[in-house]
Amino acid sequence: MKQEVQTAVVGVTGYAGAELARLLLHHPRLKGIPPVFAGRLDHADTTRGGIPLAEIHPHLADNNGTGALRLEPFSWELLADRGVDLLFLATPHEQSREWVPQALARGLRVIDLSGAWRLTEASNRAVYGFADEGSELATATQSQAVYGMPELHRQIIASAQLVANPGCYATSVILALRPLATAGLLDLNAGIIADAKSGVSGAGKAPTPKTHFMYAADNLSAYGVFTHRHTGELLEQIGLKRDEIVFTPHLLPIPRGILSTIYVRFKEPHTREAIAHVYHEFFSSSPMVRLYENGLPQIQYTVRSNFADIGFQISADGRRAVIVSCLDNLLKGASGQAVQNMNIMSGWHEAEGLL
Amino acid sequence: MKQEVQTAVVGVTGYAGAELARLLLHHPRLKGIPPVFAGRLDHADTTRGGIPLAEIHPHLADNNGTGALRLEPFSWELLADRGVDLLFLATPHEQSREWVPQALARGLRVIDLSGAWRLTEASNRAVYGFADEGSELATATQSQAVYGMPELHRQIIASAQLVANPGCYATSVILALRPLATAGLLDLNAGIIADAKSGVSGAGKAPTPKTHFMYAADNLSAYGVFTHRHTGELLEQIGLKRDEIVFTPHLLPIPRGILSTIYVRFKEPHTREAIAHVYHEFFSSSPMVRLYENGLPQIQYTVRSNFADIGFQISADGRRAVIVSCLDNLLKGASGQAVQNMNIMSGWHEAEGLL
Amino acid sequence: MKQEVQTAVVGVTGYAGAELARLLLHHPRLKGIPPVFAGRLDHADTTRGGIPLAEIHPHLADNNGTGALRLEPFSWELLADRGVDLLFLATPHEQSREWVPQALARGLRVIDLSGAWRLTEASNRAVYGFADEGSELATATQSQAVYGMPELHRQIIASAQLVANPGCYATSVILALRPLATAGLLDLNAGIIADAKSGVSGAGKAPTPKTHFMYAADNLSAYGVFTHRHTGELLEQIGLKRDEIVFTPHLLPIPRGILSTIYVRFKEPHTREAIAHVYHEFFSSSPMVRLYENGLPQIQYTVRSNFADIGFQISADGRRAVIVSCLDNLLKGASGQAVQNMNIMSGWHEAEGLL
Amino acid sequence: MKQEVQTAVVGVTGYAGAELARLLLHHPRLKGIPPVFAGRLDHADTTRGGIPLAEIHPHLADNNGTGALRLEPFSWELLADRGVDLLFLATPHEQSREWVPQALARGLRVIDLSGAWRLTEASNRAVYGFADEGSELATATQSQAVYGMPELHRQIIASAQLVANPGCYATSVILALRPLATAGLLDLNAGIIADAKSGVSGAGKAPTPKTHFMYAADNLSAYGVFTHRHTGELLEQIGLKRDEIVFTPHLLPIPRGILSTIYVRFKEPHTREAIAHVYHEFFSSSPMVRLYENGLPQIQYTVRSNFADIGFQISADGRRAVIVSCLDNLLKGASGQAVQNMNIMSGWHEAEGLL
Repeated sequence: MKQEVQTAVVGVTGYAGAELARLLLHHPRLKGIPPVFAGRLDHADTTRGGIPLAEIHPHLADNNGTGALRLEPFSWELLADRGVDLLFLATPHEQSREWVPQALARGLRVIDLSGAWRLTEASNRAVYGFADEGSELATATQSQAVYGMPELHRQIIASAQLVANPGCYATSVILALRPLATAGLLDLNAGIIADAKSGVSGAGKAPTPKTHFMYAADNLSAYGVFTHRHTGELLEQIGLKRDEIVFTPHLLPIPRGILSTIYVRFKEPHTREAIAHVYHEFFSSSPMVRLYENGLPQIQYTVRSNFADIGFQISADGRRAVIVSCLDNLLKGASGQAVQNMNIMSGWHEAEGLL
Repeated sequence: MKQEVQTAVVGVTGYAGAELARLLLHHPRLKGIPPVFAGRLDHADTTRGGIPLAEIHPHLADNNGTGALRLEPFSWELLADRGVDLLFLATPHEQSREWVPQALARGLRVIDLSGAWRLTEASNRAVYGFADEGSELATATQSQAVYGMPELHRQIIASAQLVANPGCYATSVILALRPLATAGLLDLNAGIIADAKSGVSGAGKAPTPKTHFMYAADNLSAYGVFTHRHTGELLEQIGLKRDEIVFTPHLLPIPRGILSTIYVRFKEPHTREAIAHVYHEFFSSSPMVRLYENGLPQIQYTVRSNFADIGFQISADGRRAVIVSCLDNLLKGASGQAVQNMNIMSGWHEAEGLL
Repeated sequence: MKQEVQTAVVGVTGYAGAELARLLLHHPRLKGIPPVFAGRLDHADTTRGGIPLAEIHPHLADNNGTGALRLEPFSWELLADRGVDLLFLATPHEQSREWVPQALARGLRVIDLSGAWRLTEASNRAVYGFADEGSELATATQSQAVYGMPELHRQIIASAQLVANPGCYATSVILALRPLATAGLLDLNAGIIADAKSGVSGAGKAPTPKTHFMYAADNLSAYGVFTHRHTGELLEQIGLKRDEIVFTPHLLPIPRGILSTIYVRFKEPHTREAIAHVYHEFFSSSPMVRLYENGLPQIQYTVRSNFADIGFQISADGRRAVIVSCLDNLLKGASGQAVQNMNIMSGWHEAEGLL
Repeated sequence: MKQEVQTAVVGVTGYAGAELARLLLHHPRLKGIPPVFAGRLDHADTTRGGIPLAEIHPHLADNNGTGALRLEPFSWELLADRGVDLLFLATPHEQSREWVPQALARGLRVIDLSGAWRLTEASNRAVYGFADEGSELATATQSQAVYGMPELHRQIIASAQLVANPGCYATSVILALRPLATAGLLDLNAGIIADAKSGVSGAGKAPTPKTHFMYAADNLSAYGVFTHRHTGELLEQIGLKRDEIVFTPHLLPIPRGILSTIYVRFKEPHTREAIAHVYHEFFSSSPMVRLYENGLPQIQYTVRSNFADIGFQISADGRRAVIVSCLDNLLKGASGQAVQNMNIMSGWHEAEGLL
């Protein structure tokens, strides 16, 4: 890849898009090369040459020049004219299903933050009900997709044309379980429980009854029991059968952050030290994962960082563990991980612009 | 009025409506006489005979029979069949403009929680832009309306056919200022500042960008500066000219409660005791107003009660006061005050069912 | 028991005590018989004859007479003079260990809200480290204690001299699991997971680093993994061995409410209907438990009520269930349940004063 | 000043200290020169050579070396040994009164975040009740102090030995009013109202009844009416007499952020454009102040930034304005402004490390 990278972002109006814009605008490798922000605009905004970014996200407005940035009317020509190399899609699943093949056909590399291309198995994708499921184009595109979790797939991400950025819940659960699964320690007959809790930004920016302050505040609710769409990612990336894990998400009355409490049984008893060793080995080259020696992670220590924090407790008999995994759903769970993938794809240090 | 009162509520789906339902269902004078809940329903709900109240408000479902209550398709015939005497409208302004005259024509007494009939002066009503402004029917209806603040208008409320229930912000500011205004203490040339802060329920149940958890949480914002619709109520009920008060509402990141901080200058210096005396005299017969001898009210002590709490501090020179006025915007600021008005209209003790 | 009951409350300054005071002051059977509020006061407060209740809890101050209530200096003589029949202790565990035997010796009936007398097995009590553990007096007292969960022990509560009011977490988990355990449906080899989340009032009123707004707000944290003191109650009341359940509490950034997400495996596959039937049978005479036919309970619908709400989802193969149990930790999880016990002990309807 | 600056921070355990540490650790001019963190430690911590910073602030722990940072036992020798040039004191007022003269005597430059040295007038300092008030040393020290608000005193900050970093509330109010005061527009006879609201971090890290989650959450309260300590800063820096402004702070149920709503009357009517011009002129060289052309600032857009945001509305008659001023109390209101001062004192761009 050439020394400089020109990025583009579609979907900057959403929460993940805003975080992505912030990260890219301050990224040390992209100084003086702000992303192209593009999207489908209405006629009035198209006519005035797009919308100043500062109108959409006042906190991205500063006095050092980015005030000039605009969200421009999307076209493939615009991206070509600007010499875009790398396209971030922070778009709905359906839009990513449509646009990713077009982007690949034009030679762009793509990091897609939606759920469109994360799942290898058709049975796991079924929950999305994609209109183009099974088509030749979709199958070919899926075969190019790399699941964008650097801690698992660093090497193939480096040369990937299409990176499917993981789901936020999935990231928190997979990072906690994959080391134990890879080491063959888990008693899968006993089953795994992943009880996950997420802040409201995970529910998206559209005002709905469930994102109303009066619904979310002073409340906690479970949803998507046995049916949440991130389950397929858990199965494929941890290597589980469907009945080997129960995943339950909850809506927390906080803006951002995920905490997953994960319950496993081991085939054999283990000491805390042995389990800690497994994690340390697995993440020895992973700068964005922090392992707790004592105590347990909390949402507050990961919010507004790209770190995934993992800690655990072992039962007295050494046969069970409770693992706590925390991250910021908009960063390590979305845009931060996307930038981490960009870094790897560009040959830069994985954590650049993320500390 | 006959001994028993049959109430009806239109608008039970909203926040004020839900509180009104709760209060009426537990009111000691209405035992065994639950309100008729009525509204415009879609075809499917009409066909199934309305919507069980417990579907709309699970917390109103209990095991003692109210599970049978339904929100029924509204018609004037329904109200007549059920022998409704008193109609509560927790409806949008425009709907109240249309329905109140009809209700009065059918001999119903009405407590209207909207802003439709609160304002005597056409100039103050202008901000609402009512379609029927100036019509004969509207003028006649307005002339029957009594501003439903018991602490000011107890006597005429008792016999009113139409009570216009006050605005939530207006209640908190008027109760704090009217005693001082009536006593002629205020230096109106210096002007009055009312800096008011309200929880999100004041913004209504419709999901909007401003009621999204992500917008309201961890935030504070001012709005409606110099233009808020409750200003007219302040002018008429305190007796002020428009340039004698500045009223600024803010959106607090809490579900409910209003705190108004009010700044006045006196014509002459006064002691704390003298001002306290003025308040005590004014509210001597008002069971729902609590005056603070020491310290200042806080939202937490009024939330989920029908009390308006008032406290103040006097400057060292005795020429200025900062008055703090708190209430629950859904109770004393809406449904609780409506029930207080019902009590007065029915000849019951003003605070019945409100303690 | 005589027709009238004179209650006393020790511990009114805490959160549970305040709720207890509120409930007793408004209880229909206690009209005109307010509780005696007593506690250890410092010299100054003793000298002035105690502390006005309105100073401690402004929201308990109203204009109808309770303003006269005081927190008085505790003595057994005071209780005798006032003719106290029933003593509520909302006190620290150690204080309850000391005072309960004295109260019983004086013929008082006691409802103790602490953890002092809840556990039958010495091994389960060990976590408390009671100084008097194993003493003759303690053993005799414990043998009189009835675990105060009406849904399980209604009959023996009615005649109990000492009721040990359950823990808040324990109530939410036991109510969800006991029906299934009693019916013999649970595969205990697979183990049970109870992932519980509680609002900050559960952590008590003392200001600590963990109850600081800055720690709790916008955060979630797990604590007491494998070690929480309520575990013993689960074992004894559900009938489990220690390694058959993992219980993990979390601190939610909300004032009050508990939601427990509970994961079980059945010995045999079951339909939703079959499981619902088990719950309905078990709770057929329990007015304070609400079972959800559809959807799942949420904290918001139980807060400020004495209801325990229970709902569940069954996996596609019918072998697993996720049960969600919600309640208000200060009401059904503490003071509301205490009043429910008082009602039963007094021969009144179980739900009186709680709806 | 030499090219490199070695900083030291006393008070890293508090909220402002933590933010200061974060800013300094990531400051582009301080790469490879982490601050010396020092404080009074107990014997155990002194013996083990201080406390790892990651134990105190887990979120400051990352995998790139700062894990080695420690909070070390304070001594002037330690600072000398490390070649400290610039000392940040995020310490209680009394400690700053004691330590600042010692630091100056040793030739250190000091940025003091406490209120110890902000006030020129003894009458304004009286509220602090400093034990050394009026002593020769205190008088000499005060005479060296520069009020560290770059937008007002940029030039003298550059060469200052002692910078007294402004109060958080004071910053938000002074920035809003000083341009209008300097331009001579304000009718001071009418008086100014500054109604300010701050998140809980402003109340400090010590657990107290008022910082308990249960007190602050879902609440709003006013405090320090007519008496708050920041008032003196307003008088001195805006140029007001005590009776020309009323300043009322409130405690918001959010972690951080200040919004001040400020009410002024003009001597003459002015257009919005004229007032906007005054602000633009005043802040033309101030990169950390953002002026709103439309709409009003909100806390959410300044939190976690060093910007002060200012917007306003003019009354229809042009004689009154409502000004809204927002900032993050821990950044522009404390540590961010301290870094801004460091930048100026070091000859760097004012906004370095702050965007």
